[in-house]
Amino acid sequence: MSPSAASESTARLPADRYAPMANAIRALAMDAVQAANSGHPGMPMGMADVATVLFAEQLSFDPKAPKWPDRDRFVLSAGHGSMLLYALLYLTGYEAPTIDDIRNFRQLHSPCAGHPENFELAGVECTTGPLGQGLAMAVGMAIAERHLNAGFGNDLVDHNTWVIAGDGCLMEGINHEAIGLAGTLRLGHLNVLWDDNHITIDGDTDLSTCEDILGRYQAAGWHTVSCDGHHYGEISRALAEAAADPRPSLVACRTIIGKGAPNKQGSHSVHGSPLGADEIAATREFLGWTAAPFDVPGAILADWRSLSAKGAETRAKWEARLAASAQGGELTRRMDGGPPSQSQEVGSYISALAADKPKVATRKSSEMALEVLTAAIPELVGGSADLTGSNLTKTKSTPTFSANDYAGRHIHYGIREFGMAAAMNGMALHGGVIPYGGTFLVFSDYCRNAIRMSAIQHARVIYVLTHDSIGLGEDGPTHQPIEHVMSLRTIPDLLVFRPADAIETAEAWTMAIAQKDRPSVLALSRQNLPAVRFDTEFRSAKGAYRLKAAEAARQVILVATGSEVEIAMASAAALEAEGIGADVVSAPCLELFDEQDAAYRADLLPADVLKVSIEAGVTLGWQKYVGDGLTIGIDRFGASAPADQLYDYFGLTAGKIVPQIKARLGR
Amino acid sequence: MSPSAASESTARLPADRYAPMANAIRALAMDAVQAANSGHPGMPMGMADVATVLFAEQLSFDPKAPKWPDRDRFVLSAGHGSMLLYALLYLTGYEAPTIDDIRNFRQLHSPCAGHPENFELAGVECTTGPLGQGLAMAVGMAIAERHLNAGFGNDLVDHNTWVIAGDGCLMEGINHEAIGLAGTLRLGHLNVLWDDNHITIDGDTDLSTCEDILGRYQAAGWHTVSCDGHHYGEISRALAEAAADPRPSLVACRTIIGKGAPNKQGSHSVHGSPLGADEIAATREFLGWTAAPFDVPGAILADWRSLSAKGAETRAKWEARLAASAQGGELTRRMDGGPPSQSQEVGSYISALAADKPKVATRKSSEMALEVLTAAIPELVGGSADLTGSNLTKTKSTPTFSANDYAGRHIHYGIREFGMAAAMNGMALHGGVIPYGGTFLVFSDYCRNAIRMSAIQHARVIYVLTHDSIGLGEDGPTHQPIEHVMSLRTIPDLLVFRPADAIETAEAWTMAIAQKDRPSVLALSRQNLPAVRFDTEFRSAKGAYRLKAAEAARQVILVATGSEVEIAMASAAALEAEGIGADVVSAPCLELFDEQDAAYRADLLPADVLKVSIEAGVTLGWQKYVGDGLTIGIDRFGASAPADQLYDYFGLTAGKIVPQIKARLGR
Repeated sequence: MSPSAASESTARLPADRYAPMANAIRALAMDAVQAANSGHPGMPMGMADVATVLFAEQLSFDPKAPKWPDRDRFVLSAGHGSMLLYALLYLTGYEAPTIDDIRNFRQLHSPCAGHPENFELAGVECTTGPLGQGLAMAVGMAIAERHLNAGFGNDLVDHNTWVIAGDGCLMEGINHEAIGLAGTLRLGHLNVLWDDNHITIDGDTDLSTCEDILGRYQAAGWHTVSCDGHHYGEISRALAEAAADPRPSLVACRTIIGKGAPNKQGSHSVHGSPLGADEIAATREFLGWTAAPFDVPGAILADWRSLSAKGAETRAKWEARLAASAQGGELTRRMDGGPPSQSQEVGSYISALAADKPKVATRKSSEMALEVLTAAIPELVGGSADLTGSNLTKTKSTPTFSANDYAGRHIHYGIREFGMAAAMNGMALHGGVIPYGGTFLVFSDYCRNAIRMSAIQHARVIYVLTHDSIGLGEDGPTHQPIEHVMSLRTIPDLLVFRPADAIETAEAWTMAIAQKDRPSVLALSRQNLPAVRFDTEFRSAKGAYRLKAAEAARQVILVATGSEVEIAMASAAALEAEGIGADVVSAPCLELFDEQDAAYRADLLPADVLKVSIEAGVTLGWQKYVGDGLTIGIDRFGASAPADQLYDYFGLTAGKIVPQIKARLGR
Repeated sequence: MSPSAASESTARLPADRYAPMANAIRALAMDAVQAANSGHPGMPMGMADVATVLFAEQLSFDPKAPKWPDRDRFVLSAGHGSMLLYALLYLTGYEAPTIDDIRNFRQLHSPCAGHPENFELAGVECTTGPLGQGLAMAVGMAIAERHLNAGFGNDLVDHNTWVIAGDGCLMEGINHEAIGLAGTLRLGHLNVLWDDNHITIDGDTDLSTCEDILGRYQAAGWHTVSCDGHHYGEISRALAEAAADPRPSLVACRTIIGKGAPNKQGSHSVHGSPLGADEIAATREFLGWTAAPFDVPGAILADWRSLSAKGAETRAKWEARLAASAQGGELTRRMDGGPPSQSQEVGSYISALAADKPKVATRKSSEMALEVLTAAIPELVGGSADLTGSNLTKTKSTPTFSANDYAGRHIHYGIREFGMAAAMNGMALHGGVIPYGGTFLVFSDYCRNAIRMSAIQHARVIYVLTHDSIGLGEDGPTHQPIEHVMSLRTIPDLLVFRPADAIETAEAWTMAIAQKDRPSVLALSRQNLPAVRFDTEFRSAKGAYRLKAAEAARQVILVATGSEVEIAMASAAALEAEGIGADVVSAPCLELFDEQDAAYRADLLPADVLKVSIEAGVTLGWQKYVGDGLTIGIDRFGASAPADQLYDYFGLTAGKIVPQIKARLGR
């Protein structure tokens, strides 16, 4: 809320006008779900009263400028209740969705998808549906807000993040991680409205939980308050108390799921199915709602539309302050997402690497690149899930971010991989920061769906995933990611980089930052790797490139990534020594290679030459690139031993690879 | 603990003999980590006192019979402290590890791997290391114990599950899911000893958390008690209180990490690095430990070895009761893991399907198969993560398992996918039950690492993952698993079934149950699918088979799975109508196909015929089977719309596939 919002809020509507406004939400929700013959009426109807008070009295928003930087963020974490959000956006006057969009709820090409999608509607802050992640993304938004506030001051950045969450969001494990982080960071501008309806899909919540939820939130350092979710005065008081408390707040809103449907409300049958024609008629009767489906009476719509005046005024004042501020241009640049050029610094750094040829782990190369990049790009905000010294994510430019110093740029996320990833999604979607965070690659499993959600949401999040195969050594199979690089490649719209040395790592970082609309993974080694690149031509940009051309007549092409490029080079040298010409292709990012034109791809990997992939992971998938050639990899779980012994044990040495190639060539 | 254990426990050692015993653990841990030049001394040294009291006074175990069914289970959830467990197994007299095994800690082929692995040592109940999962598996063990107790009575099944967990285990999201489940199910035989040392890898715990952990456990329905983890009397009192309370118990053991290392204890520097020669010398001095590395003085070893007498006596009494019990044979059968033959019932059921040709969703086919199987196999224990009515996991034979009825056979796991999966691992490893559980396939992301841990641990867990592609329709891209089937196939030692109709589903279920040493995934459709199989020959056993042979001269082979087999059949019919002979191969399980001999594989998918894969998911990976043929699939996220429209939109219809095949054939 901006500094002047307190006085503006006196302009709010009298509470007796809320009931028809809330019923408009109920009617739109039940009619849209009925028309689609699919969807979730229970939550929108149950939370209609709370949402009405929130939008009327607390939320700072302007439908004419949905991306206005200092707006409050509203996250519908219980995304299955998407009709609540679509109804609110329509009623308050956003350009989209239109009433026709709502009529086409859940139909192909309607922006009103089954779950809210941030790329479909400007008023949707993030894509929700996978339970628990909306609230966790809101934590990230609140982090971004406090960080920007620390840099730009109350005049330019001072807003709240409001969340509606259901029992599912709270029962998921990620909730524990998200609220633990928010409590520790004392994110007082974050407020969660819990739809406490005692119902899950399977039935009453006591089928599966006996939890004292307020007690748990209090144990995590949160402020809690309760209200009757159908009593406007109580809701109003609870929301005001939440907004005022310096801690993050949980507002327990005791509601009746499907409120207004006289025969079905309060039962799990109303959660995820259309009410049916009879119950819809009964609901109209019960609510006194006489308007036709998708028709909102003018006086009620006018009340809803009047709410935007306050936000418009708040925004106008903010814009005046922005224009008057010396920092206005910088904030605008950062919110627009265009990082400052760092080409000169990176160029110098890569030139130095080409000369120095350092033999370091790519996780160390990543740290070295980050030293350059974090110095040049103030919006890079790093962190690690309690592996800072292993992931090497912290640089001289990134002091610790904490409740005592929101200007810090490195977050101790704790042992909370999923929470970290979802928070980074929220930070990226908030804007003004470019988040990166580290864990071991094997624990990408723990946050996998949030990585997927980065991709779905077109969010620039950079995952620093170190200890990327058996090279981590003694920690053994539970910690050795065998299948992870390939399985991450199956996620659409995600760039998976596995650089081979310090130059490729610097190139990967530069490209990841340049991807304004998609996330990247950097899979990095624990063990030292020799330099294989000595030029400054940014060759990783094509995803794969010819690192070494055959000297003798070309009979084989070796394709490798990361730590196995060294092995490919050694194998090629051994082959050349026997007169067998061998190209070596380094492939730091297969997704970027796939985007090259056919001529480039065919030149690099022609159909008529034997191709051999070498990667210390599962071979499934490499057939796409080497056809019926050889796929050298590891198709089983790893083992606990020093790394060099494991490479030998699993056959990933030139001495064990070359004979296989010769046999295939009939030599 | 068996009914007679109370009197036996009076035979415990006087507390003044504990200190040297605990120091033996410390010495073995620090020397083994030093020899390996890798590992984690801090936890074993910090928890040595607690572990000594646990093994001396509470744990019912017999080193001569590590798999004795009514033993207490001990789970080292903080698996990085593996030397604690190896030291305990050696000191108490298990056949393995030997002292030489411990000398070879973290070396290739040593059973003393970096993290404890259940397949390496009989005394290791489960493989731990991925944080949080050990405790969650212990919840599953405690579930299995109560369930078997309900069926076999106190005389045959009455034991405890003890866990040592660290801050990492407690901070992970899965901890919230696990303790919520345990609290709701009132698993009083589960006791967790929390190594409360105020340290994580990054530093002091207050860097990343401000949580009141006891408050949180109390909010989840747990009993909590605290003790000084270095005061034997306090530990003894706290463990006894935990054992006696009817709720699951958390024992907060306030410890000093690396206790005994005078210059490093209490600091995060002792967590995961060798102490170094100087500090080891100082520790020997500080502890008064004069024995050489890997040498335990005879009197101390004798005290440790004396502890097994109690367990041996308890086991002997239990075996006498088992022999005398009418249920003894059945319990032994169930613990041995050989399910009763259900071939007759399944055979009749499949014959009926061949005649009836039902058009049903494979999730429904799964329910139908489960009706037969759960009636025939009493150890099948099902459940769902709050999607019972969608996953269709509950049958007439499986009443609800709850705190009020542990004889039940279907668990409402709540909205806790990761907790469910880990609990199922614990149930399978406990033995006596065969767990299966459901969620949406897209949420396999949430429990992915537990699925991986099923495979690593050779655990027979069956994942019922429904709504397996765009066929789920309106819920849209967040709920449509595009990459999941292929990405699950990248996990070693996991069978991924995607059956095409009711007969293939019955075959898949039968094979999944028969896999004594590996887990299975069943990817099942939301939408109805026509029958494509009309024989009873159990053809899925080979993983892929020729469903339809070409009628005209064969020019193409269509390979499909699940819901796309129908489309492959329609495409083949259209091709045949134009004189183009087409085989259709149904491939319900590519892992089983890979295990067939080369002749079978070459006959089914010969190199010289055009092959076309059809699967409503990412195409990466299919090149392994179709070479440079066509891969028809979906290489982007899905969309929200009715299923049939989506199939058309994404080009998965015979009408859109056939022209591509003809173009490739030059027709």
